[in-house]
Order: sequence, then structure tokens, then C-alpha cells
Amino acid sequence: MIKSLVTGGAGFIGCHVVNHLIKMGHEVVVLDDLSGGSKNNINSQAIFINGSVEDEELVKDIFNTHKFTYVYHLAAYAAEGLSHYVRMHNYRSNLMGSASLINESINHDVKCFVFTSSIAVYGTNTLPMTESAVPQPGDPYGISKYAIELDLKAAYEMFGLNYVIFRPHNVYGEFQNIGDRYRNVIGIFMNQILNDRPLTIFGDGKQSRAFSYIDDVAPHIANAVNVPEAQNQIFNIGSDKVISINALAEIVIEVMGAESSIEYLEARNEVVHAYSDHTKLKHVFQIKDESEASLRKGLDRMAVWVKEQGAKETKIYTDLEISKKISSHWMRH
Amino acid sequence: MIKSLVTGGAGFIGCHVVNHLIKMGHEVVVLDDLSGGSKNNINSQAIFINGSVEDEELVKDIFNTHKFTYVYHLAAYAAEGLSHYVRMHNYRSNLMGSASLINESINHDVKCFVFTSSIAVYGTNTLPMTESAVPQPGDPYGISKYAIELDLKAAYEMFGLNYVIFRPHNVYGEFQNIGDRYRNVIGIFMNQILNDRPLTIFGDGKQSRAFSYIDDVAPHIANAVNVPEAQNQIFNIGSDKVISINALAEIVIEVMGAESSIEYLEARNEVVHAYSDHTKLKHVFQIKDESEASLRKGLDRMAVWVKEQGAKETKIYTDLEISKKISSHWMRH
Ligand SMILES: NC(=O)c1ccc[n+]([C@@H]2O[C@H](COP(=O)([O-])OP(=O)(O)OC[C@H]3O[C@@H](n4cnc5c(N)ncnc54)[C@H](O)[C@@H]3O)[C@@H](O)[C@H]2O)c1
Ligand SMILES: NC(=O)c1ccc[n+]([C@@H]2O[C@H](COP(=O)([O-])OP(=O)(O)OC[C@H]3O[C@@H](n4cnc5c(N)ncnc54)[C@H](O)[C@@H]3O)[C@@H](O)[C@H]2O)c1
Repeated sequence: MIKSLVTGGAGFIGCHVVNHLIKMGHEVVVLDDLSGGSKNNINSQAIFINGSVEDEELVKDIFNTHKFTYVYHLAAYAAEGLSHYVRMHNYRSNLMGSASLINESINHDVKCFVFTSSIAVYGTNTLPMTESAVPQPGDPYGISKYAIELDLKAAYEMFGLNYVIFRPHNVYGEFQNIGDRYRNVIGIFMNQILNDRPLTIFGDGKQSRAFSYIDDVAPHIANAVNVPEAQNQIFNIGSDKVISINALAEIVIEVMGAESSIEYLEARNEVVHAYSDHTKLKHVFQIKDESEASLRKGLDRMAVWVKEQGAKETKIYTDLEISKKISSHWMRH
Repeated sequence: MIKSLVTGGAGFIGCHVVNHLIKMGHEVVVLDDLSGGSKNNINSQAIFINGSVEDEELVKDIFNTHKFTYVYHLAAYAAEGLSHYVRMHNYRSNLMGSASLINESINHDVKCFVFTSSIAVYGTNTLPMTESAVPQPGDPYGISKYAIELDLKAAYEMFGLNYVIFRPHNVYGEFQNIGDRYRNVIGIFMNQILNDRPLTIFGDGKQSRAFSYIDDVAPHIANAVNVPEAQNQIFNIGSDKVISINALAEIVIEVMGAESSIEYLEARNEVVHAYSDHTKLKHVFQIKDESEASLRKGLDRMAVWVKEQGAKETKIYTDLEISKKISSHWMRH
């Protein structure tokens, strides 16, 4: 039987990947420290290990105990905007944790290492972002993702460890943690609605993104190991449909059946427009174009799930390493 | 009085930088864990703290105790070729240690952060390597250096921390540790001569480098904080004179007054030709072209010093994280 390790398998994208792998017949081990994910998300057929990828001894133990054919590495502290203020925390989880998994994957002859990087590696770049663009990440989160992309390439060239790298963007859907105040604007909006609060937007709301429904992302991540032409390649993954944050807010208010107002906050240092090209992914993974109504449909489904779950508390991150220039909104009770 | 922190100030380049800073009137604090450097190298007028940049609490303490105007960050585990086999060790010292210093430099309003990166960031690239080339580091050492370059840029853009980044290459001269079997071919050759052993060369010896004398490097690193046009810029630094390893071996044998033979070892995975362009440095730092005889002169001086010191033992690195594909020469007693 094929055995796969999924780090971050209690998280949003990770739990969907686990479900697909189990459908594909893999035996799945989940390593997650539940810092962002939830035990309830984990498929009951998976073996769950509650621990951190930062724990080198634990990682070694797990590889000594299980013989993994594949590693899907999704665990990360993924609050990009906050990463300026929590450099060490970011590099510890996203870089050191990843490097330790790469070491053990080399030592134990893993057949393919699937890694979720991010379009954060592009930084401010030519649009649409294509895989051939030169990455210029502008924050510690994007830098750690890019460093691991390069490290995987070095590990492949030196030791023959195969990899598939995905650069997702703005994924949303069921099982997403809507209680994280530092990331995922859709989840934040929905939670604000459930809490009868105004929707908060940094800047004028004219910044734009392309929001990607989880079912257009997770199956391909799971299946990547079976696509020969995908080996040792990097792929943008996600939606082509660009929308401004203002327009997004309107649709979210609609699908939630709410009547919320909007509160505009001081702009923060972020990339204004970000969307990427998916020609390479569609070609190699043989994916058809998405339908016009895809965002609306995805949001409808997410709204149903979110309403079932109810409002979430949003914790304030208290271990800031730098507190200069931080948005007061992020620290507000 | 201007106070400067020099990490790695007990090391080769670092101890020279410390000497220059003291001549320039700075008060100097050296932080070094003596893993590669030696206490004897440290200028007696400097305050020496024996500890690691990886020790976050110590780093915080030092910044709380001293009010630094400038930080010169030279501490690193710099054995590039070995970094494939000691990923975690490499990222811990070169990336985490650096990020912690950047955090504290932001928190304590340091005026300029001077960082010694490396031409390792270029990887296999167009020659000569210019600062405008796209870095594509091919080993964990180069990746960690490049990640910190990007992190410094992000810290500047987000928090206004000024930086000057140097990418030195193949620096040699007095106070270099010639007992490190994993790096610095000139030191390795000289030590082999003192031990009456053959000079070892990986591959056919036709690979080439440009060797840079320490006095053409250290003064500019020290002075960088005083050059306004150098702020927030990246500079290649070192010699323009390219030479094959075979030709280098001949000159080293000559300056040492020896009659050694050469032992050719299996080629290892390294960049074959590496030299860089220094137009930018010469322009901004107003440096004249080096003389034709510079390599010979520098090696003569180094040889005098090395003979005074005598042969060194070369320790084997025993904490390998990966031992696949490692050169047997590196592990040979
Ligand atoms: N959601 C997006 O839009 C998006 C976009 C680009 C990239 N990504 C990447 O996809 C991956 C999954 O993201 P997500 O949106 O599902 O986030 P998520 O927070 O829901 O999932 C991450 C999971 O990793 C776990 N985790 C965090 N640090 C850990 C550690 N040190 N050890 C073990 N587990 C740890 C968390 O508990 C969580 O369950 C991440 O690598 C993220 O960087 C996501
Ligand atoms: N020598 C070269 O040709 C060259 C080329 C490119 C870049 N560099 C860079 O220049 C810098 C100095 O290199 P060098 O040749 O003088 O090497 P070196 O080994 O002589 O000096 C490095 C010093 O850092 C110290 N050190 C290592 N890890 C430490 C840690 N975790 N905490 C505190 N101190 C630590 C060592 O004890 C040593 O004294 C390094 O950053 C290196 O990467 C050197």
C-alpha cells in the first residue's frame, strides 16, 4: 500500500488533500500541531500525529517508523502580512520545518515531495504572474517559501529527490479557519457578518485578487505524484477570475444574506494587484477552463458550511517580535 | 562614540574588519562562537562575547546592553560544498542567526546593517557575474545567503533599516583558518604542503576562480557605512584575475618553496567557472584596478604568516545530516 505523509493535514487545504488521498487508496499519516487547523478536519481513516514539523527528533522518528512513498508538505504559518513582525516564527515553521522534512525525505528515498509554496514568491511582479517570472518575494513568508523551492531544486539535483511545487493563491471553501484575523479575506468577511460587525478593508478596496475554490485546487495537489510531466516542475494553481476586494465584499454580503456596512482601514504594505497565469497547470494536468459563475458557486457552498459552524473568536497574536508600524486593527480587541 | 557589533569577528574576514573599525575610531563588540575563528584573532581593544548568533536570548541581551549604531554581520558556517549534507546546521546559523540580528537591528534603530553574502547566490550563471544577474543559488549555503539578502530588502522597505550587502568570493590572506578541510583551497594547499602531503584537487583542476586578497576586501566592508551611495545596495567584491585551480596550485607550491605533487580526486558537484564583475564597487567606492602581480604578492604575504603558524590539524565534520554521495575524501582520516 502507498503511504503518504501530509503535514498540515488538519488545516484547510491539507484536510481536503487527505480526503483525496484516501479516496486514491493511500494510507495517510497527518502531522499537524493544530496551531491553525483543527482535529475535526482530519479524516478518521488517517493516522494523526499531534506535533510540529519544527521538532527535528519527532520528524526523524516518524520517518523511521513509517516508510513513506510520498510527502505532501502543507504545514506552514501562512499569515503573509504578519510575517514582517514574526520573522523568527515564520522562518522556524516555514523554512526550518521544511528543511528537516527534505533531509528525511532524502535519507528515506521518498519518491516525490509535494510542496505548497505560494504566489507570495512573486512579490511585486509583472501581471499575470507566470512560472517563468523571476521571483522577488517582499516579505519573510514569501522569502521562506522561495528558499524552500530553491532547496528542493538543490535536493533534486544533488540527491535525486523528485518534487512538485504548487503556488496557490487565495484559496477559499469549506473547512477554512474563518477565525484567523491575519489572513483569508473571505473567511474574515464571513466571520464579521456572523458577528454583526462591519466588513473591514485595508486601503480603498481597489486592490484585486483571484479567489480559488478549494475543489479546483486540492485534487490536483493530491494527484500530482501520478502526473509524470509534473515531476520537478512548479505550477501556479487557482482561479483566473480577478476581482477587487470591494466587489468581493458585495458578493460575500449577498451569499451570506446579510446587510453589512464596510469600514475602510489605513492601507497596509501589500501587493496591490495579484493574479497569475495557469496555462502550464491546465496543460500538464489537463484541466478545463472554469465556468463564469465559479466564484459565486464556491462562495454559496462555503456560506452554507460557515453558517452551520457559526461565528468564531479571532485571537490576537501576542508574541510579536517587532511591533513598529503594525496595523492597530490587527491588535484591536 | 560610534559602537559597532561585528559578528564573526574572531574569523578571518571579521578580524580584519574589526581592526579597520578600531582604526576608524569605532568601539567594537565581537560576537563569535569560535566554531571557525580563534580568540587570538580578536583585536584586544574589542569587547569579546563568546556566543552564538543562533542564541536568540543572547542576541536580545546584547542589543539591550549596547546601543549599536552599526551591525557588521559576518558570522556564518561558510563551507558551501558541505552545506548539502548539513542543511539544518546551515540554515540555523546562516539564516535563523541572521534573521534574529535583523529583528533586533530594527527594534533598536541600527543605522546600517552590513552583511557578507557570497557569490554563491549566483549559482551557475552568466559570466562574469554582475549584480544585475538573477540569483539562482544551487546549494543550501547560497540559498541562505540569498534569503537574507531578500529579508534585508524587506526590512528596509518595511521598517527603513539600511543595509549594505557584499558578495565576496575566494578571499585569502593572513589569519585565515587553514585547518578547515571543507573550504578555502589556498589554505588547504598550504596546510597540505606544511604536512608534506600531496595537494588535492577535485576533478581535472581546470575549474577556475578569482582569488581576492583580504586587504582588497576588509577595508571596504568596514567603510561601507560611510559611503552614502552604497546604502541599500549590493556589491560584488574581490579580484578580477581569474585562474585555474591547476595554475593556482603551481603558484602556491612556489611561494611556499615546496616540491609537492598533486592528487586528483573525483570531481564534485560545484560551479565550474566563477568570477564576477566589480565595476559597481570600483565606481561607488572609488577603487583603482589591482596590479598584475597582486595574486603573487598576496600569496607571498600569506605564506610568510602561514609558515610562522605551522601546520594545522583538519577536523572531520561528524554531525552529517545526510551521508549519501559525500566525497570519501572529506571523510578520510
Ligand atoms: N490558503 C491559501 O490561499 C494559500 C495560498 C498560498 C499558499 N498556501 C499554502 O498552503 C498550505 C496550507 O494552507 P492553508 O490555507 O490550508 O492553511 P491552514 O492554516 O488552514 O493549514 C496549515 C496547517 O498547518 C498546521 N501547522 C502550522 N504550523 C505547523 C507546524 N510547525 N507543525 C505542524 N503543523 C503546523 C496548522 O495547524 C494547519 O493545520 C500552506 O503551506 C500555505 O502556505 C495557502
Ligand atoms: N572567505 C571567503 O572567501 C568568503 C566568500 C564569500 C562570503 N564569505 C562570507 O564572509 C563571512 C566571513 O567569512 P570568513 O571567510 O571570514 O569565515 P570564518 O569561518 O573565518 O569566519 C566566520 C566566523 O563566524 C564565526 N561563527 C560561525 N558560526 C557562528 C555562530 N553561529 N555564532 C557566532 N559566530 C559564528 C566563526 O567562529 C568564525 O569566527 C561569512 O559570512 C562568509 O559566508 C566569505
